[in-house]
Formats: sequence, structure tokens, C-alpha cells
Amino acid sequence: MCRWAAFIGQPIFLEQVISAPAHSLLVQSQAASEAKTAINADGFGIAWYAHRPEPGLFRDVLPAWSDPNLASVAAQIKSGLFLAHVRASTGSATSRNNCHPFTSGRWSFMHNGQVGGFEHFRRSADMLIPDELYHERKGATDSEVLFLRALHHGLDQDPVNALVKAARDLENLSREKGETPHLRLSVAMSDGENLYAARASSDHIAPTVYYKRCTQSEGWMVVSEPLETSSDDWIELPAGKLAVFTKDHVRLCDFMG
Amino acid sequence: MCRWAAFIGQPIFLEQVISAPAHSLLVQSQAASEAKTAINADGFGIAWYAHRPEPGLFRDVLPAWSDPNLASVAAQIKSGLFLAHVRASTGSATSRNNCHPFTSGRWSFMHNGQVGGFEHFRRSADMLIPDELYHERKGATDSEVLFLRALHHGLDQDPVNALVKAARDLENLSREKGETPHLRLSVAMSDGENLYAARASSDHIAPTVYYKRCTQSEGWMVVSEPLETSSDDWIELPAGKLAVFTKDHVRLCDFMG
Amino acid sequence: MCRWAAFIGQPIFLEQVISAPAHSLLVQSQAASEAKTAINADGFGIAWYAHRPEPGLFRDVLPAWSDPNLASVAAQIKSGLFLAHVRASTGSATSRNNCHPFTSGRWSFMHNGQVGGFEHFRRSADMLIPDELYHERKGATDSEVLFLRALHHGLDQDPVNALVKAARDLENLSREKGETPHLRLSVAMSDGENLYAARASSDHIAPTVYYKRCTQSEGWMVVSEPLETSSDDWIELPAGKLAVFTKDHVRLCDFMG
Amino acid sequence: MCRWAAFIGQPIFLEQVISAPAHSLLVQSQAASEAKTAINADGFGIAWYAHRPEPGLFRDVLPAWSDPNLASVAAQIKSGLFLAHVRASTGSATSRNNCHPFTSGRWSFMHNGQVGGFEHFRRSADMLIPDELYHERKGATDSEVLFLRALHHGLDQDPVNALVKAARDLENLSREKGETPHLRLSVAMSDGENLYAARASSDHIAPTVYYKRCTQSEGWMVVSEPLETSSDDWIELPAGKLAVFTKDHVRLCDFMG
Repeated sequence: MCRWAAFIGQPIFLEQVISAPAHSLLVQSQAASEAKTAINADGFGIAWYAHRPEPGLFRDVLPAWSDPNLASVAAQIKSGLFLAHVRASTGSATSRNNCHPFTSGRWSFMHNGQVGGFEHFRRSADMLIPDELYHERKGATDSEVLFLRALHHGLDQDPVNALVKAARDLENLSREKGETPHLRLSVAMSDGENLYAARASSDHIAPTVYYKRCTQSEGWMVVSEPLETSSDDWIELPAGKLAVFTKDHVRLCDFMG
Repeated sequence: MCRWAAFIGQPIFLEQVISAPAHSLLVQSQAASEAKTAINADGFGIAWYAHRPEPGLFRDVLPAWSDPNLASVAAQIKSGLFLAHVRASTGSATSRNNCHPFTSGRWSFMHNGQVGGFEHFRRSADMLIPDELYHERKGATDSEVLFLRALHHGLDQDPVNALVKAARDLENLSREKGETPHLRLSVAMSDGENLYAARASSDHIAPTVYYKRCTQSEGWMVVSEPLETSSDDWIELPAGKLAVFTKDHVRLCDFMG
Repeated sequence: MCRWAAFIGQPIFLEQVISAPAHSLLVQSQAASEAKTAINADGFGIAWYAHRPEPGLFRDVLPAWSDPNLASVAAQIKSGLFLAHVRASTGSATSRNNCHPFTSGRWSFMHNGQVGGFEHFRRSADMLIPDELYHERKGATDSEVLFLRALHHGLDQDPVNALVKAARDLENLSREKGETPHLRLSVAMSDGENLYAARASSDHIAPTVYYKRCTQSEGWMVVSEPLETSSDDWIELPAGKLAVFTKDHVRLCDFMG
Repeated sequence: MCRWAAFIGQPIFLEQVISAPAHSLLVQSQAASEAKTAINADGFGIAWYAHRPEPGLFRDVLPAWSDPNLASVAAQIKSGLFLAHVRASTGSATSRNNCHPFTSGRWSFMHNGQVGGFEHFRRSADMLIPDELYHERKGATDSEVLFLRALHHGLDQDPVNALVKAARDLENLSREKGETPHLRLSVAMSDGENLYAARASSDHIAPTVYYKRCTQSEGWMVVSEPLETSSDDWIELPAGKLAVFTKDHVRLCDFMG
């Protein structure tokens, strides 16, 4: 299990999500409240959009709380759209290439959840990635396959359906060769324009996703668990839904319901 | 706060202390029971004696549970005397040079505890290390100073008194320039012949030390918390005592009582 | 291009190959003489046989010359059969899982050379690894595929032919989908009993392999370039040959000649 | 020996100094032309000024050429004033805290050169750092001492003289307790407003510094060796001089002449 947080709105310092709040992502890397694992210390990563269509990507294997590079980068970089993630491995090694987010072209992607029994059919999963995208397959996680398979299904043209298809592909592989729970998914992803967050599962225990309107930064914070517990403003995304965030709006649609 | 474990006896695989037991040091790096901090994920280290008078030293910044090098080394190296440590920082950075154990010549040394307010007088503490030992001052921890100061006071000639004097030096600095608690100490150290374990504090909350006779490996396991909770055989070292272990015997003496 | 060195004989300290000689592997990581790249600083690794049928494995991403863990481990571990490698990447990322040697069960394996255009057909190469071995596919190198494919072809039963078949598989993929040079190979591998070293290429520029009888340690040093240049005793393994070393003997046979 | 490069002017992507030029800092980490060491692979670092008075700082131990984080950060961050450095150690360990630049408050600082015999008197050097700055002493380099001593002498009030005094302090220590060459210095430093570059030595072999006016970015590139060899526009800073750069101007003054 992992924890993640994303933002879209007027540019803010990354630290306003990563380290500043009372129950920030950094705190969650040591003591998450709503995750299967309290500790999420198998690496971290951030992807942010600034001056280019493609996002920047900074990932490392240290626990998030002990990396001064992360603290410095988060304090210095402003962005109007970014993803941040702290990892608890569900099997694969601790290495930079197994940390989220993943990026390809304009897209960034992160995931909390699992594909049941993935290590039993990783070869079949890797085969779901076409030749032209295989150079992007750098690690061994189910999450990276989910992303690359979704790219293959056309994230650029129809992100919602592309992600649904990719999730179904992996769920089916799990049903065929894996074990329960076949799919638990909470994804956040972006093309540099919109921010997407989805929540689903094969067994009605879908990892949580919340979001909140931030009037000060004229945007949205979207998280796996709230960044402070004092506030009532966090809205829970229902399981089986995907939310599309622009700077100003949010729109929900069905997702593997 | 940190967790540590040491062994002296007939050669055994390091993993029989580091990873094999039910509540091994590896488990304690994620979920210690008797430490201030349950998580000890700011690096790890092992020092072991085998073919040479000087010990080997292997330290790294990854959480102990996620480092395949540690798993492999622990599974392959046999030693009749070794120290192992998992770290929770009390202030200084996560870096290899701030991980325990520390070594110099034949000596190896590790510590759990703190010197209150150390960061306020680190300069004065560094000044306690003479020129001829200063090349061994590689990090910024209070523990490394304690070790080097003890070397200065004559670990080779009279290890118990050397350690007492060094601990007093740091306690006095803390009383002069630091804050409470001035000294909390549980040390394990070795010259490759004997294993020493000490337990003391300035305020009667001395970090715990236990030891147990292992008939199978004809030796002693000495730990900050027991490696399995099912056993009654763990003896608690009283606060204000230092134990000297040979392969066959243990002798207690006063330590800062 | 990379540099490697291996030993079989009476147990010696690893450092007698890794760091002690005048032109040791450590020196070669900074200034190799016979390699395409003088610098081989994209990580290192050692695999050694001691108390178990399976080898130990220690790999890291630092340049070999700057890692105190390597220096310490090499100074402390004695082994009668080990492989050591310093890496210069031919495309894939610097990460532990892309460092050599690779291990699986009793086998250890390292490689210097390349499979031409590998990144264009890595997917097809990964598909050469059967399901039951895919959990061992941890990185993105051509070398790891070569090893796992050779395991699939039966390294246990007929190591020479298994390696030939695996090399042919990759050479054919390169001819089909890659680029010249299709295959340049110098491999060292072991099952804990014998040491195998092979040298071949598709274009008559086969990476070098030398070996030398060490009377003192009653064994063989097998290297990609000699560990000292003062000695005449290094025998060059001809291209298109594989050498099988036991503690006492060496036997040459054809290899993709 | 190390290589460094700095920029002041209108904001540009860091990569326009770090990786884009034909003989960029990244190239110099593998194959410097004018350095004592061609390879500068003992870590790297960048300090950049953007939205805050204090600079950001990102340092790591991997060779600069193999770190995807550096590539991504350099491609994404724009700054009108930044320092970048690739390290070749003159003795101290490869660790983040021994990488340049160093920062304290608004100041950033990097150095190429050496203080002769520093390891013989590191204790005396550390004692030059007052208590109130000692928390900034995180590593073991002579460069970090030079910086902190200069801060002590009043970088904020009179940067040139503060640096001269600090350099003299270390040169004197070297004459008293060290060895020749006592001082070789090329420093670049900034307070977020101006960029300072100095060049001096005790023996007339002062590490090189060059600078060039960039009309496109309306600023100055200041380097230890030129970023492309095709251009005539690089001006060599004479030994015994310090240059003060603003966005638009440069002013030379004497420095330890």
C-alpha cells in the first residue's frame, strides 16, 4: 500500500502538499492513518508540470522523511499541477524505477493498490506492453504496467476508457493466473492539462481517494488520505468513480462500477 | 532511538541474529516494541570479526528491511563475534557515516540513546577528539564522538573506565550546554576478543539491554530488545551495569552507577 | 563495455582480485586499458561461494573506487570461487538490478559485451524468459536475459550448450530486429563447482578474456584484462572458445566458433 | 580536483549549463580537459535561486552523467542565478554532505582546489568554525570549512575580504601543519544577488576560471573550463583576482594577489 497526493490550480510550492500540512505526505510516509501499512518508506517520487509540456520527475529510494533533496526541491519548485507519492512495496524491489510517479511524454501516473498475485504472471503482464512503449518499462511494478497499458489503449484520445481497459486487462490476468484480491486501484494521473483520479476494486475494498477545493490557491487537492484531519472540507470520491479536475471544476464519471 | 543486537560464541551466520528470529533486528527496524520509536529506518550497519584482527564494516542508508545486500551478506557470512544496528536518527542526517557501528583499528562500537542537546554543542564535543583520532571522525553523531573519546581514554588498556570517562565527558558537556535528558546510553562494543555491553542514564530511564545464553552456538546474544518474545531466557542487564562477555562467560561490573 | 575478474582455487580474500593487484578491478573501474570505455563507473557487483550452494551477491551503483562497503567486504571475505564486475552501461539505467553478476539458485553470471540494438527489441528478449524464471528478471539489461535464457536452456545439465543456445537466441533477435554488431560476448559464470569463461562475437571483435595459473592459491584467475601488466603468465582465451576451470585444471572447448 | 559552472542573468533552464553545451558540465564529469582529473564522478550538486532568498540545493553521490533526477531537474528548473558542481574527491568520502555547493542562509558556495595536507589538521580547521555556525558543518571537506569560515568573517558585510581572510586562515594552517601546495583555490559563490568568482593559489598554479557574456540570456556564464571549445568569447580570470558579476556588469578586484 502507498500514499499519494496531487494538486491542480494556481501555482503553489510543492511543499504545501508534501511537507507543510499537519498530516502531510511526509508525515504519512511514517504514520499513515488509512492505509494498510502505516509506514510508506520504500521510496518516494514527484512529477510536476512547469515550463514544458512534459513533467519533471524526481524519484529516490530513501524514506521521504530523510531526504534533504526532496525537502529542498519541494520548498523551491512552484507548480500548478503535480503528483507526489510515497511507496510501500507490494513485492518488487526498492529502486528508483519502481517508485511512482511514472512518466511518458506528457503523461504522469501514480497508483495505490495492487493487482493480486502479480508476481505469478508478471511476464504475461509485460507482454501487454507493445514494442513501441517497451522502452518505458523500466521497473517491475504492476503500476508501471497499468500505466503503459493505458497509454497503449489511448490515454491521449480517451483517458477514462483507456484506464478502464488497462485496469480490466490486469484484473483479468489476475483472475486467470493470480489471486484475490484481483484488483484494488486508486490512480491519479495527468497530461499536464487535467488531473484525473479514479477509485475502484474487484472486491468492494477500494483504496480511498479524497478531494478538497482550495480557495486560496484556486485549485484542488486530491489525496489518498486527508492532509489534515481538522477540516470537514474533504469529499470522499465514491468507489467506482473517476473525477476529472480542471483548475476550476470537477466532473465525476463512472469507472469500472 | 535505535535497536541493536550482538553475538559472541562459535561462528554462526549473521542472519541468525539479523533476520531469522521471530522478532529479529530486521523486524525491529519496522516495528520495535521497547524503543521510543517503532520505526528504525534511518540506515543500518554490521561489524563482524572473521579472519582479521580488524572487523569488517558494512553500513547503508536504506531501511534494513529493503536492502538485498544486507540479506545476502547476512546469509553468507559466518562470524563468532559481530555487532548489528538499525538506526532512528536523533537529529543528524541519514548518511553512511552516521550509521553504526563505528570502527577504529580492532574496535567496533554501537550505541542506542542520546546526549541531550548535542546539536547545541557539537563543536565542543568534536574538540574532545584528539588530532591523532580526528581522521576517524567522519559523521556528525554523538555516538561516534562517544566512541572516539573512549578510544582516547584508553579502550585498549581499560575498556570499562575508558567508556565511563567518555560518557561522563559528554554528560558533563550536556549539563553545561545541552538539555535533559543529559545522557541515555546502551552501548555494545568489541575489540575482537570480548564483547562489552553497558547500560546507563542520567535520569533513570536507561535504554534496555538483554542477554541470553545460546547453548547451540555456545555463546551469548546481547540485544536492546529480545529477538523472540516466546522465550524466558532473556536476562535484563540492570541499569548502571556493564557486562563483559567471552565465548563462555559473562561478568558484570558497575558502570556509572 | 565493462570489466570483470573471477577466481577459482583455494580460498583467498576477494581483495586479492578486486583491489590489491597493480591493475586491479578497482583500478580498471577508473582506467581500463583494453576496454572500449576507460571508465567503468556505472556500478559494481560481486558474487561469491562460501558456506552455501547458493552464492552471496553484493551489488551497488556507486563507482567501485568510492564504496567503502566494497573495500571492507573484499578485505574480509575469503572464497575459493567468486566473480567480480565493474559496469559501463550500454544503455540501461544505473541501478542495482542492472549491475552484474546475476544469480539464480546456485548459478552466478556476468558479462562484458553487447547485443546490438537491444533496446529496440527488449520486449522480444524478455519474452524469451519463461514464466517460471521471470521472477528473476529484475532489471533491463541484455546480460540478465542472456543468463536467464541460458538457465532455461539447461545450464544445470549442459552449461556449454545452454549458453551457446542462449547467445544464438539473442544474436538472432539482433539480426532480425537490431543492429550491428549483433553479438559481442565475454561471459564468466559458475555453479559453485566449476568456473566457465567464454568469448565470442558475430564480427570477430570479441571482448578479451585472459587467464593465469596462480600457484600460491592453487587456482586460476580469469579476467577481461590482466590484473598486472608485468607478468607474462596471462594466457589469452581465443575467440570462439569456452574454458572450463576446476581448482586444478582447465579444459577448452569450442564456443560459437 | 573538480569542475564547476555558474550563471547569472535572465532565467534560463539549468540544463543550458549542466548538459546542453558541447562540453557541458556533464561531459566534464566524464572527460574534463583542464582539470588534474579527467573524471569527476564522486558526486554532484546544484544550488539555484528562484522564488526565495535562500537557494534550493540538490546533491547526490552518483556520477552526474548517470543520474536521471539531475537530468530531469535541470530540464525543468529555470533560474537567473545558479551554481553547479561535479566532484573529484581529494580525500574525503563520497557522500551527499561532501558534495558542493554548500549553502547557509542566502549564501551558496562551491570550490575547486585544495588545502594541502588538510586531513592532517582537519580538527584545527573544524575549530575555526564558531559554535553558532557549527550546525552547518555537515561533512569533512576543506571546502565546507572555507565557506563557513568566510561566513564567520562576514560574507554578508564584505564578501571579498571575508573570503580572503578565510582562505588565509586555511593557507596558514596548511603552512603550519600541512603540506604543499598549501592553497589552490577557485571559488564561485552567491548571496542570491551577485555572483562572485575568485582564483588564487600559494604556488602560482591557480585552478582556472573563465567567464563569458551571453547576449541571448543577458547574463554571464562563469566556469572552471569552457562549456564549448569552438568559441573565442571565454575570458580567463587572472590568478589573484576576484570577479563580481551582476546581471549586466562584471567588476574585477584583487584577491590574495
